[in-house]
Amino acid sequence: MDVSNLSYLRVLMDVASDSYLPKGASMNDLSLPKAVSQAALSAQTPNPGHQARLRSRNGEARGHTAGVAPGNVQGNLMVLPKDLASDFLLFCQRNPRPCPILAVSEPGNPMLPSLGEDVDIRYDIPRYRVYKDGVLVDEPYDIASQWRDDLVSFVLGCSFSFEQALVEAGIPLRHLEEQRTVPMYRTNIATTPAGVFHGPMVVSMRPMRAADIVRAVQVTSRFPSVHGAPVHIGMPHLIGIQDINQPDFGESVTIHEDEMPVFWACGVTPQSVAMAMKPAFCLTHAPGSMLVTDLTNNSLASF
Amino acid sequence: MDVSNLSYLRVLMDVASDSYLPKGASMNDLSLPKAVSQAALSAQTPNPGHQARLRSRNGEARGHTAGVAPGNVQGNLMVLPKDLASDFLLFCQRNPRPCPILAVSEPGNPMLPSLGEDVDIRYDIPRYRVYKDGVLVDEPYDIASQWRDDLVSFVLGCSFSFEQALVEAGIPLRHLEEQRTVPMYRTNIATTPAGVFHGPMVVSMRPMRAADIVRAVQVTSRFPSVHGAPVHIGMPHLIGIQDINQPDFGESVTIHEDEMPVFWACGVTPQSVAMAMKPAFCLTHAPGSMLVTDLTNNSLASF
Repeated sequence: MDVSNLSYLRVLMDVASDSYLPKGASMNDLSLPKAVSQAALSAQTPNPGHQARLRSRNGEARGHTAGVAPGNVQGNLMVLPKDLASDFLLFCQRNPRPCPILAVSEPGNPMLPSLGEDVDIRYDIPRYRVYKDGVLVDEPYDIASQWRDDLVSFVLGCSFSFEQALVEAGIPLRHLEEQRTVPMYRTNIATTPAGVFHGPMVVSMRPMRAADIVRAVQVTSRFPSVHGAPVHIGMPHLIGIQDINQPDFGESVTIHEDEMPVFWACGVTPQSVAMAMKPAFCLTHAPGSMLVTDLTNNSLASF
Repeated sequence: MDVSNLSYLRVLMDVASDSYLPKGASMNDLSLPKAVSQAALSAQTPNPGHQARLRSRNGEARGHTAGVAPGNVQGNLMVLPKDLASDFLLFCQRNPRPCPILAVSEPGNPMLPSLGEDVDIRYDIPRYRVYKDGVLVDEPYDIASQWRDDLVSFVLGCSFSFEQALVEAGIPLRHLEEQRTVPMYRTNIATTPAGVFHGPMVVSMRPMRAADIVRAVQVTSRFPSVHGAPVHIGMPHLIGIQDINQPDFGESVTIHEDEMPVFWACGVTPQSVAMAMKPAFCLTHAPGSMLVTDLTNNSLASF
């Protein structure tokens, strides 16, 4: 998350008028058991995922979630009408590296109990985006008023989880050192199409020295449900990247002379692919503002 | 193993005069239970490691062991007098990537039962080398006449095991395609010294494409006892290699434009380090002529 974006979000946060109003006032019949879960929480060990979601529900958290509940899995959100959802599910199944599915809801049901007993996708993300015919039309703090009986929520793994594993393995991450958004690039790596969904893979890039590359492959291979191992190492032109200093998303970072760029499949891929076919209606999280789940990063390790 | 070396070994094999004489005639009091193990073998499933060793013992195999009993672990041999063995053991312990120990014998005992019940290191390798004061003085087919009560045998893992895993994972290996000995290079990567032993790491190199590099790191990481994961990727100058086309050992192989060189710690390192201090007495296997054990490559996988 770059500093200017952060400041932008903080300004939006500060000027928001309903910060202290509970959102329960606008809840529909699938209302949150908020009082119950808060009472339960106070009697138990604090659950950092639940606490983060409470802050979103209560309007206390409206910005990015980088560094929030750092041991917990965070997820990207994609909400599509049921008529597109089965193609999108198939697209994710065929492209697990860029589109690792953590959970899929029942149509019309905003709850995602496998990610946390009380997860209500309408309130539990600090900020959302609403797209109509592929055009961004709103960035609300909840999507209760947008909710429909035919909507299916997809929560996809994100790189925060494997980045925690990399940092714990002692591998420095340049975009964190330089306080920038990780650089991302459209590639010439085709995804496997499914129904209406098709398009190129988007990758994120982290530069590192050879010994760290070996370790990074080992560490991230353990986490297939959050993008897993790198998809490319070195030689950006081989995957269609003309200028490594001109990312398509995020910000450029320094690559030292003894380092090579290492590329991971990126969760921007499914968003990019979904937007390319301009769905009549679609909801997502706002960039950097993710769903904080109750799953721990360590629980995702495949071995 | 390059073809000219092979021819050389075959010529030596053909002119050898004692090919059909059982070696038992020269056995000392630690004689092989040869008749017993042969009888046992005929009553059981054939054991390809045992069979390969029988061919060495009987003088039927005198060349290289590449491709022999391909599912079985093969080992490098280093035999040192007891007064050097503890330093060498410490050196291996401190440098597990280039010096992965499969077995260490008791002083004076030529048997290595952990590698196969009947393994007798004096006979079970097709060809040996004898060094005195660091100078190669003989290349015998057995070392019975050299055996002493103070000798300790070290059997170290070799790259044949992880190469089998790479080939099974669908990763092409250029030196096999081009029928050359894998290229090896002295690097500027220092090993960790122990007693009298010190010196640079020797690495083997296999060129491959990025996707195969990721897979190769994953596959070889599972086999730490046979060198494990690569120690370097790309940019040879960073590890002191001036010209990738001029290996210090083995032969140069083609590197295509979409490939990078990938470097693994090499079992030539301990030999190179041991020879550098010119031990008064030392025995090794002849290049490419290894101990075939009863261990399966798959049994070495760490997960």
